[in-house]
Amino acid sequence: MAAPRRLLHDLCGADPARRFSPYCWRAKLALAHKGLEVETLPWRFSDKAAIADSGQDRVPVLRDGDRVVADSWRIAEYLEDAYPDRPSLFGGPGGRALARFVNTWADAVQIPGIAGLVVADIVPHLGPEDRAYFVASRERRYGKPLAEVIAGREQRVGQFRQAMHPVRMVLRERPWLGGADGPAYADYIVFGGFQWARCVSAFPLLTPDDPLHGWRGRMLDLFGGLARRAPAEDRSGG
Amino acid sequence: MAAPRRLLHDLCGADPARRFSPYCWRAKLALAHKGLEVETLPWRFSDKAAIADSGQDRVPVLRDGDRVVADSWRIAEYLEDAYPDRPSLFGGPGGRALARFVNTWADAVQIPGIAGLVVADIVPHLGPEDRAYFVASRERRYGKPLAEVIAGREQRVGQFRQAMHPVRMVLRERPWLGGADGPAYADYIVFGGFQWARCVSAFPLLTPDDPLHGWRGRMLDLFGGLARRAPAEDRSGG
Repeated sequence: MAAPRRLLHDLCGADPARRFSPYCWRAKLALAHKGLEVETLPWRFSDKAAIADSGQDRVPVLRDGDRVVADSWRIAEYLEDAYPDRPSLFGGPGGRALARFVNTWADAVQIPGIAGLVVADIVPHLGPEDRAYFVASRERRYGKPLAEVIAGREQRVGQFRQAMHPVRMVLRERPWLGGADGPAYADYIVFGGFQWARCVSAFPLLTPDDPLHGWRGRMLDLFGGLARRAPAEDRSGG
Repeated sequence: MAAPRRLLHDLCGADPARRFSPYCWRAKLALAHKGLEVETLPWRFSDKAAIADSGQDRVPVLRDGDRVVADSWRIAEYLEDAYPDRPSLFGGPGGRALARFVNTWADAVQIPGIAGLVVADIVPHLGPEDRAYFVASRERRYGKPLAEVIAGREQRVGQFRQAMHPVRMVLRERPWLGGADGPAYADYIVFGGFQWARCVSAFPLLTPDDPLHGWRGRMLDLFGGLARRAPAEDRSGG
């Protein structure tokens, strides 16, 4: 039997169906946007050996035939360049340039903002082999117990919602962030963060009247409900 | 003598050469990017009548033949659509879509951040006819005297620099924000805010080792030094 042609190492919890990495979601949605089949391989923090040939130790890692590509942004650029006849992720060179800005904004503002509200909720979803590593590495980063990191989140979530205002202002004008006619990679970048939270936490990041909430619902419906079908804690529907 | 074909109403201070509006700078650089000659008309907050036919009361307002276009974003879209054979401001549909996100980010994060550090420095540049209006309207917005708004700015500027991190991360990788090969409208959006500050204040928003400082210097040099030649308070060179 031939080996599967396209594989993605995809972070999971103790339950191999619990796929919560925001960066892996960016890659999975980029692959779906390109209409490319992929087999996702459950990967845990302790599985460093499985991706050692990528030259680094984090997922997503894409294997496309003989090519090994690590890092969600590099995967998106690789897919755009390797499959130019498929639907574009960027909508031209200007869109690719500014999608990088959306990526740096999400990594600098959105992801840390979400982590400060839900990071402790990840722990119960991890298997014993990952839990000690995850807690120790994150507590070192924050300099305090993860329960303290998320303490007072009901009071602090307003700051996070305020920080999402640049996206909200765009979504008041049109249904998608990255494209006039449909979602683009910029949408997958930002959605990845919300899907990460949704998979591990029931904490409400968004209010139902927020344009971001409606957009998140549209994103969950894309590609036959690819993201909506994923095991998740947040049942708000949007 | 025929009337000039293309005019821009451009905010100025008591000195008609002191042009400090961030939104007018976006429009002037967009016009220069398109290689379009324009006559800029000094405009003051008290000159509402001069732009009444634009249906609103703020600048920039562009007059291009019979067309009257208000709002810097609308002007950029107008120029892109009306002059498609000139160099593109957006680099394709994806770039236009995401330039709107850069615009909302700048308006929600960068402009308020800069205002909180330099707004009181605008006042001495205003003529008597504008000063009372400006101070009253801004003090109403902030709920306190403008001297108090900028108080402690030496301690707070670090927060502003931190908020610029998404742009900085891009500029560590390449020389321009909006394009791979040269500046695009996204660069003019963000530069407009820095040029606003530079025209009215000597307060150092950026440190010389910041990639944003080098980028600002490149922006000042564009179009024969269009922005560098403008009367300014900040002499840092970048």
